[in-house]
Amino acid sequence: MDNSYGQIFKITTFGESHGKGLGVVIDGCPPGITIDYEFIQNELARRKPGQSKIVTQRKEDDKFDILSGVFEDKTTGTPISLIIYNEDQRSKDYSHIATKFRPSHADFTYHAKYDGYRDYRGGGRSSARETVARVAAGAIAKLALQQLGVQCYAYVSQVGALKLEKSYKELDLNQIDSNDVRCPDQDMAQQMYDLIDNVRKDRDTIGGIVTGVITGVPVGLGEPVFDKLHAELGKAMLSINAVKGFEYGSGFEGVTQRGSEHNDIFYAEDGSVKTKTNKSGGIQGGISNGEDIYFNVAFKPVATIMEDQDSVDTEGNIVTVSGKGRHDPCVVPRAVPIVEAMSAIVILDFYLRQKTKRLL
Amino acid sequence: MDNSYGQIFKITTFGESHGKGLGVVIDGCPPGITIDYEFIQNELARRKPGQSKIVTQRKEDDKFDILSGVFEDKTTGTPISLIIYNEDQRSKDYSHIATKFRPSHADFTYHAKYDGYRDYRGGGRSSARETVARVAAGAIAKLALQQLGVQCYAYVSQVGALKLEKSYKELDLNQIDSNDVRCPDQDMAQQMYDLIDNVRKDRDTIGGIVTGVITGVPVGLGEPVFDKLHAELGKAMLSINAVKGFEYGSGFEGVTQRGSEHNDIFYAEDGSVKTKTNKSGGIQGGISNGEDIYFNVAFKPVATIMEDQDSVDTEGNIVTVSGKGRHDPCVVPRAVPIVEAMSAIVILDFYLRQKTKRLL
Amino acid sequence: MDNSYGQIFKITTFGESHGKGLGVVIDGCPPGITIDYEFIQNELARRKPGQSKIVTQRKEDDKFDILSGVFEDKTTGTPISLIIYNEDQRSKDYSHIATKFRPSHADFTYHAKYDGYRDYRGGGRSSARETVARVAAGAIAKLALQQLGVQCYAYVSQVGALKLEKSYKELDLNQIDSNDVRCPDQDMAQQMYDLIDNVRKDRDTIGGIVTGVITGVPVGLGEPVFDKLHAELGKAMLSINAVKGFEYGSGFEGVTQRGSEHNDIFYAEDGSVKTKTNKSGGIQGGISNGEDIYFNVAFKPVATIMEDQDSVDTEGNIVTVSGKGRHDPCVVPRAVPIVEAMSAIVILDFYLRQKTKRLL
Amino acid sequence: MDNSYGQIFKITTFGESHGKGLGVVIDGCPPGITIDYEFIQNELARRKPGQSKIVTQRKEDDKFDILSGVFEDKTTGTPISLIIYNEDQRSKDYSHIATKFRPSHADFTYHAKYDGYRDYRGGGRSSARETVARVAAGAIAKLALQQLGVQCYAYVSQVGALKLEKSYKELDLNQIDSNDVRCPDQDMAQQMYDLIDNVRKDRDTIGGIVTGVITGVPVGLGEPVFDKLHAELGKAMLSINAVKGFEYGSGFEGVTQRGSEHNDIFYAEDGSVKTKTNKSGGIQGGISNGEDIYFNVAFKPVATIMEDQDSVDTEGNIVTVSGKGRHDPCVVPRAVPIVEAMSAIVILDFYLRQKTKRLL
Repeated sequence: MDNSYGQIFKITTFGESHGKGLGVVIDGCPPGITIDYEFIQNELARRKPGQSKIVTQRKEDDKFDILSGVFEDKTTGTPISLIIYNEDQRSKDYSHIATKFRPSHADFTYHAKYDGYRDYRGGGRSSARETVARVAAGAIAKLALQQLGVQCYAYVSQVGALKLEKSYKELDLNQIDSNDVRCPDQDMAQQMYDLIDNVRKDRDTIGGIVTGVITGVPVGLGEPVFDKLHAELGKAMLSINAVKGFEYGSGFEGVTQRGSEHNDIFYAEDGSVKTKTNKSGGIQGGISNGEDIYFNVAFKPVATIMEDQDSVDTEGNIVTVSGKGRHDPCVVPRAVPIVEAMSAIVILDFYLRQKTKRLL
Repeated sequence: MDNSYGQIFKITTFGESHGKGLGVVIDGCPPGITIDYEFIQNELARRKPGQSKIVTQRKEDDKFDILSGVFEDKTTGTPISLIIYNEDQRSKDYSHIATKFRPSHADFTYHAKYDGYRDYRGGGRSSARETVARVAAGAIAKLALQQLGVQCYAYVSQVGALKLEKSYKELDLNQIDSNDVRCPDQDMAQQMYDLIDNVRKDRDTIGGIVTGVITGVPVGLGEPVFDKLHAELGKAMLSINAVKGFEYGSGFEGVTQRGSEHNDIFYAEDGSVKTKTNKSGGIQGGISNGEDIYFNVAFKPVATIMEDQDSVDTEGNIVTVSGKGRHDPCVVPRAVPIVEAMSAIVILDFYLRQKTKRLL
Repeated sequence: MDNSYGQIFKITTFGESHGKGLGVVIDGCPPGITIDYEFIQNELARRKPGQSKIVTQRKEDDKFDILSGVFEDKTTGTPISLIIYNEDQRSKDYSHIATKFRPSHADFTYHAKYDGYRDYRGGGRSSARETVARVAAGAIAKLALQQLGVQCYAYVSQVGALKLEKSYKELDLNQIDSNDVRCPDQDMAQQMYDLIDNVRKDRDTIGGIVTGVITGVPVGLGEPVFDKLHAELGKAMLSINAVKGFEYGSGFEGVTQRGSEHNDIFYAEDGSVKTKTNKSGGIQGGISNGEDIYFNVAFKPVATIMEDQDSVDTEGNIVTVSGKGRHDPCVVPRAVPIVEAMSAIVILDFYLRQKTKRLL
Repeated sequence: MDNSYGQIFKITTFGESHGKGLGVVIDGCPPGITIDYEFIQNELARRKPGQSKIVTQRKEDDKFDILSGVFEDKTTGTPISLIIYNEDQRSKDYSHIATKFRPSHADFTYHAKYDGYRDYRGGGRSSARETVARVAAGAIAKLALQQLGVQCYAYVSQVGALKLEKSYKELDLNQIDSNDVRCPDQDMAQQMYDLIDNVRKDRDTIGGIVTGVITGVPVGLGEPVFDKLHAELGKAMLSINAVKGFEYGSGFEGVTQRGSEHNDIFYAEDGSVKTKTNKSGGIQGGISNGEDIYFNVAFKPVATIMEDQDSVDTEGNIVTVSGKGRHDPCVVPRAVPIVEAMSAIVILDFYLRQKTKRLL
């Protein structure tokens, strides 16, 4: 609960933005997975600050250290502990926000929930820096899924009002990392880039949408009636900082359709059951049906802006919160690997859970 | 897991559409809650079939029986078992779907997941009849929440393309049950009614959106970083049959905004911290901030239509699936009490979890 | 938690001694297990009251009803709900214990824990009648384990000071049910029978020990470091009413030995690794090693005696508690099927968990 | 599961004997607990190797580092990560046991369970070095319990056949640490010391018993019917390396008694309900009754002896295992703080769970 996710492949993250480091313990990873250190480091690099002009210019190398659960480069089935030490823990001056509640941040709610005990530096535990641990765990999940032929993709499909109207099927998902925005349509990527750059110059921020696509998922994953595959995917995505919505398959647009046009007709091909359309988004009754899974995740505009804002402090006094530091004008380019990571964790967990549905 | 929801107020549902009955075990309900039998029966009545012309005309009285956990009309803190017996278990002829996979139903995925062992009658476990157990459990959660001043509302805000543009603040939420559609705007309710009735006459179905509103939630509920309040609300809603999407607060529309317009500015009033706007939907950093919680839940058009459809059977043969029986042309009017029930279960569970965050 | 046991094969029991009935929901039973109704009923008969002169003479037929999760006599992988209705729910007069705390019963602690809300009739939820639900669930676990070649035995090895000195290997475990005591050594069984009968005539009660033996367990079951096989077996046994101790393998006597005599030496036979002795009790490092698992469970004398005892009531007044009703002079003969049931549930759960330790 | 313990105050341990370090993540610690670093270090010192002549002479300083969850010396309610780095990770030569199964160790079962992937150095994950993480977590639990007036004691009550016949009530529990054996009776402590020293000179090992005593426990802790207080205590103790048995209150000896002598008679004093005797060991019906909790934990003789033993290797060949390194001749003196740590974790977890049993 709380800081753990998963039933079998179970991750527990820990750490604060400006503490000694961020980390994750993975309990339940099957033995024998080869740890590809370069792959994990590369996944972290896709998320790290400072990778392009349109993301925050903070500097973190995000080197990771595996403390346990791996022997001679193979997982052993015992808990994997992985830490990313924060490089710069010098006591910067955060006193200006120690008692102030930044608008639309979690300062106030953490303060109230935890009885006033709170590491306020950079948002502490509520900072999106926590997701670095998820990306590391997700990289290990991806390494396992590779053996099963499962691929987890994500890309930016909307920034502000700029919406990519093409379906994922019309895109080359191998081009996701070919530009800084992580939108595989180069024209749209350029427009998005320009918009984010303008927002940045305005000292403001803007929201966006990340689309996830998972291919190669075996039939049968998902555990109704509560742990439906899309319900857990939804929870996993909604647990990412700044996420405000989740939809899969036909999603919100599907409500306007009639059943006769929305239903996916089955047919058989090479001994497999397939569907002619895929409004279901690869999930029926909460269980994967073998078709591609696809979904959208909505991210709000980042709450930290560079302009002054009114607020209150812990004593109820009216105060001014001034934007400081180096923050993302738009979170979605760096959110892409996070969405992929959580996708991989969800699918691997359900894959392992499904193994318990056969006695012999 | 699987058929259980909640960490402290934990429900486990069981039963199939055409088996002996549906039921729920609630473990972790605090002692001393007065069971109002009439209230629970009324909640079930809001969900039951046959309540109006625009819902399925099947007949179920949905009388419930409490087997345990209640003594002299008070909960005792021991597990509450509650059963709704299926009235008509006669062996109707369901052989026409025993081996056929109905399009966009869960027949195929259950067949694959559970190795071919499946109660196919009326969809068995995958039928939305399972939600009767959730409404019963939710009614008990509501009785507990009443003592805390928390109210869980839901209403129909969209049917097909007919969308109620008013915010929940412009509506009288006490009027939700004043019409068969459960839309508190009477004009819109009539339009929606007519649309559903037309769809029904077309032997087709249509989707819609249910909006949920929760008032009176104390500050501090929600357990980051994974069990954020909105993440669990999202999972709970997505676990309801036919749901394709969830958004809260500014939701998907919020992505087009800039941070400077999206941020909710804090102010102090009567010793409480409040926000001038509520784009956050009452939740910041995954924790309730004391403002109203509001969210949207997208329901796809019901998969069962009255026209013939192509499909395949368990042997991979091409077959025709004919619509039979009495089904809902649009699920949202009956989904309203289900959304409320799951809301109540989520909030009560987090309320009890928050109690463990203080040592003394 | 609380009223649930198991991670994958997960049981949740409900019901009170004098309520409408006792029951269990089993979530996570694999599909395709054939339900042998006669076998289940026979397991319940081994536990039921009135089966011989040395057990309580209460009358309960303990007929069970399966409400869900089984279709055409096969499990479907969905939750199995099973109920044993209490036959005699007439409002007997229990007012004499409504406010009195019976010595060494759970009346006082339940009263305090649950804020004074308590079904006092016959002990309510704290009554050992709850174990009827465990025996039913254990019977289904046994049916699954039969396919794996695992057998769970239990027998009475001590009553009062009468201790069977033979090891389980010197006994014919098929003779367990050949006498009323359920001790497979007929001479000792007769002595135990006479002792219990004398204690009964003295209107008193006496304790005893049940020995459990599990054969055919595959190598590799158990989940260190906390969910060690013997740790879960111990918890499961200690959760049975009246149990005061658990030991496995060499147990408490093993502490007097030296490592050089206690160690089990490995050897290889037919490609399998075996041990020459089995002080380890079939479990090493919390994981089964393929040898027989054996353990002892200590049951205290039943708290209900027929003589008057001093006590206090809910107001703190001194009162007299008079023995009434028909109770067991010694619980171990009826505890044998309960120990077997919990053994079966533990082993099946770990068997299914072990499946998740392989990726492919 | 697996490497986690607790429902609310939840610990997850990680690390191997000769890896980079051992650690623990504590999720669910209430905010505002003052971290007393010296106290934690002292608890670790009570467990560490090399503290006296009768324990292993290995050298580990067991310095700990808290990475998260604590800010300005107070817990913040977010996950506490605590690591003890292994000082000497130089690649010692362990090749002599890389493929050999040491008798009565977990080498064989880990090998089988985890498909041959195993850190064999010093037993890897199966080493009792893992308990250093438990002692650290237990120290934090003790700091919280101090505020509630709960004290967790443990002491050595038996070594080999040398058994302390006095009850804990006849001992001064403040004298536990006054000698190297950790037996508060000085005469017996000296006899035990001499026995252990002789066993050590014989290059052999011997077992023993640790008695636990918990005072000041509030009435009402424990969650029937499965998570009874003594069932969880038993599981927690049985999860410690080398433990073979657990009994509480009258334990195994109680089985010889009659109910009339075993029952604890209630009386009232100063508005509290108390018992004249305490055969129940402070727990009735699985719930604390306010009396002292006491229990025994049996530890087998350590499996590592200095003499040669026959065994097999991973290929099934007969091999000789030679005793090497520096090991404990008797584990119980160092097990005392581990038993206390697990006691503290169990009690604190139940204390926090009990908070959820009141709505208001």
